[in-house]
Amino acid sequence: MEQLKKEVCVANKSLPSYGLVTFTWGNVSGFDVDSGHVVIKPSGVSYEDLTPEKMVVVNLSGEVVEGELKPSSDTATHVHMYQEFKGVTGIVHTHSPWATAWSQAGRELLPLGTTHADYFYGSVPCTRSLSSEEITADYELNTGRVIVETFRKHAIDELAVPGVLVNGHAPFTWGGSVKDAVKHAVVLEECAKIAFHSFQLNSKLTAVDQTLLDKHYLRKHGKDAYYGQ
Amino acid sequence: MEQLKKEVCVANKSLPSYGLVTFTWGNVSGFDVDSGHVVIKPSGVSYEDLTPEKMVVVNLSGEVVEGELKPSSDTATHVHMYQEFKGVTGIVHTHSPWATAWSQAGRELLPLGTTHADYFYGSVPCTRSLSSEEITADYELNTGRVIVETFRKHAIDELAVPGVLVNGHAPFTWGGSVKDAVKHAVVLEECAKIAFHSFQLNSKLTAVDQTLLDKHYLRKHGKDAYYGQ
Amino acid sequence: MEQLKKEVCVANKSLPSYGLVTFTWGNVSGFDVDSGHVVIKPSGVSYEDLTPEKMVVVNLSGEVVEGELKPSSDTATHVHMYQEFKGVTGIVHTHSPWATAWSQAGRELLPLGTTHADYFYGSVPCTRSLSSEEITADYELNTGRVIVETFRKHAIDELAVPGVLVNGHAPFTWGGSVKDAVKHAVVLEECAKIAFHSFQLNSKLTAVDQTLLDKHYLRKHGKDAYYGQ
Amino acid sequence: MEQLKKEVCVANKSLPSYGLVTFTWGNVSGFDVDSGHVVIKPSGVSYEDLTPEKMVVVNLSGEVVEGELKPSSDTATHVHMYQEFKGVTGIVHTHSPWATAWSQAGRELLPLGTTHADYFYGSVPCTRSLSSEEITADYELNTGRVIVETFRKHAIDELAVPGVLVNGHAPFTWGGSVKDAVKHAVVLEECAKIAFHSFQLNSKLTAVDQTLLDKHYLRKHGKDAYYGQ
Repeated sequence: MEQLKKEVCVANKSLPSYGLVTFTWGNVSGFDVDSGHVVIKPSGVSYEDLTPEKMVVVNLSGEVVEGELKPSSDTATHVHMYQEFKGVTGIVHTHSPWATAWSQAGRELLPLGTTHADYFYGSVPCTRSLSSEEITADYELNTGRVIVETFRKHAIDELAVPGVLVNGHAPFTWGGSVKDAVKHAVVLEECAKIAFHSFQLNSKLTAVDQTLLDKHYLRKHGKDAYYGQ
Repeated sequence: MEQLKKEVCVANKSLPSYGLVTFTWGNVSGFDVDSGHVVIKPSGVSYEDLTPEKMVVVNLSGEVVEGELKPSSDTATHVHMYQEFKGVTGIVHTHSPWATAWSQAGRELLPLGTTHADYFYGSVPCTRSLSSEEITADYELNTGRVIVETFRKHAIDELAVPGVLVNGHAPFTWGGSVKDAVKHAVVLEECAKIAFHSFQLNSKLTAVDQTLLDKHYLRKHGKDAYYGQ
Repeated sequence: MEQLKKEVCVANKSLPSYGLVTFTWGNVSGFDVDSGHVVIKPSGVSYEDLTPEKMVVVNLSGEVVEGELKPSSDTATHVHMYQEFKGVTGIVHTHSPWATAWSQAGRELLPLGTTHADYFYGSVPCTRSLSSEEITADYELNTGRVIVETFRKHAIDELAVPGVLVNGHAPFTWGGSVKDAVKHAVVLEECAKIAFHSFQLNSKLTAVDQTLLDKHYLRKHGKDAYYGQ
Repeated sequence: MEQLKKEVCVANKSLPSYGLVTFTWGNVSGFDVDSGHVVIKPSGVSYEDLTPEKMVVVNLSGEVVEGELKPSSDTATHVHMYQEFKGVTGIVHTHSPWATAWSQAGRELLPLGTTHADYFYGSVPCTRSLSSEEITADYELNTGRVIVETFRKHAIDELAVPGVLVNGHAPFTWGGSVKDAVKHAVVLEECAKIAFHSFQLNSKLTAVDQTLLDKHYLRKHGKDAYYGQ
């Protein structure tokens, strides 16, 4: 748990250095499978002031079990995702500008090339808008629910497409480690930027062929992956 | 007053580090409610050369009451806003490129997502153009007047929407402290950038639902705010 | 002359720090009115390797009168401009990306707001394309000629509009000092960036009213200027 | 060979400082004509961890002849290009965002101005898409083949146009030295950015006149080149 606090702290501090956040607009959490506890950033604290000791530990009911500060206001979203997305042990939420532009536009991010295919095995979906009722009560929990609903409804494998655009809001990414969740946040932002410009150059673009998607995703992630050492 | 000079000096120096200004294209002022005096940047002095002693103090008639340098050429705009916008004690003017692009385009900045809703409780309005008469005589004062007119005419609460786009010119932001005024300048620039790209991706976008605007603005600013510590 | 070499050297070195150049894509020169000599960057030498001693001095016939290196390949353009634009003592040429985008598009840069009006008293014009004959023989001299022609033909005062977009090429700026010429290069790039985005937001934009142009230009540059100390 | 390893190592490390790569999204190789061996980046290793000793040496059959790490997954592409593009001794592959946007859009990069003409003597072509068969078997080799095919089919001189956009993927650049290959990667990215904006400003743009292309390319590269010292 102390190790996880350190990892989550380091990951939160990395967000501004990757250019993903302004002020305190983002939070990273990590999940400890054994205890069923989530380590998350405290709410509204600047990244430079973060220390492992300031991380907040909550259980899967969202109750604080350790730490003196209030957890991120988005905690209920993270907790719900850990409950539903088995195998995910790190989640990142930011308002990174390019991915947020797509979220606000309500458009999914099509896989237009190999940069996308190397990390996301298909479109990064955009959720439907929440209803007024969903916003008024349990907003953060309902944000988690609409994310999970989006993946279930379209039968998207959340481990193969580790990110989502929340309609009118901003992106969430995740992974099998805190570090991978951050990596996916960086990649999503870069892909959102490149795809924006590709669409301006050619408004009729569609997704790359499934074969190219397979090739690039699987050479990095499949059982016969041959990228890296 | 010495404390306010320090704050205003620090705030002015922060503008280039936030990427909001080129050369001397921006100024910050602070208002001391007790004395009714305004502390403002001297005109045309580079940010690196600023010291608290170089700040200029003017009264609500715009007359210099302390300081050896000439105050910002935009002083009359600031002073008028302090007179009309009760509760405002910090004002920032910049030519930050994204907000200025919207000002030049004469378009209000709609709340397209939660990033905007976290700080601005509705559209950031764009003023009408000034008439030739308003430009020729008392230009800077009339800039302040058209800002106030914009808020009064559309019944916008200036404390809930702490920024404006001056048509053909550039943004002003403000707040209940000098620091908050600067924070709003940063947020306005970021929202202007993201909204620009959202509109390119989806030209038919409209404002987010009022419920979402309420939720995000009020979780940070309402009496039942629960964001932060 | 030694003083001018230092100024020209410092100005050349400032181009990459202002983000105006990649590799060696830009050059600054200065004009010594008394001797009629021009101090200019040596061709193809990286900015970090520049020293005042490496600056090249040429006369108004373009002949090297001092220095061991070859002068910038654009020397004939600079020299012609000094001959024709009286009062100009500093010239900057870059391929700064936003101004170059407008040059390649063959579009003049309209004054869309006060940022532009503060430094350029009207549109920054774009030259016509050079003919094949003008390109084949005396290309660099003809570049200078088409710049001068553009200002004469449209009766633009080169001291009030200290910049030009050369069609299919890139910008030149100038001023009454080497430092001002560099300042105008920075401002032109910033205005080109902002105007690009304004036009995307509102494709029907036209120049701001002459009264606003007068007000902003003259409060900084007229005989009754009141901006600065 | 030790010298070449150093050069290739330095060149790989320069990619992030030029802003061309995120994470490990790029690789540089160098070709030793005498031995017919290729020195290339190891796969998936971060740039900061690279040392000359970690570079991998492969022969023209793509077999590792020296080095303990696996070579870049794109090795077969590089090797094929060295076999076919005589005189090329350095190759760079990146996913630099602007050039990748054009690759994903499937559009060639027209020479819109002198910035482009200074380094690329005509359009930087975009390859056709690979067929499913070409992707499934020998993908990386087929990527090299489609690059060569593009140049042969359109009779483009690969030494005069040292770069290509691979459809749905990203750019490759090359040169007569490792350093020149990197330089062309930087220039291609810059030209892709500027051309993007030029086309937004004027969607009907076409290539600059052949005479201007000749003038700029040849004043830097022809036998009568007069740019530089």
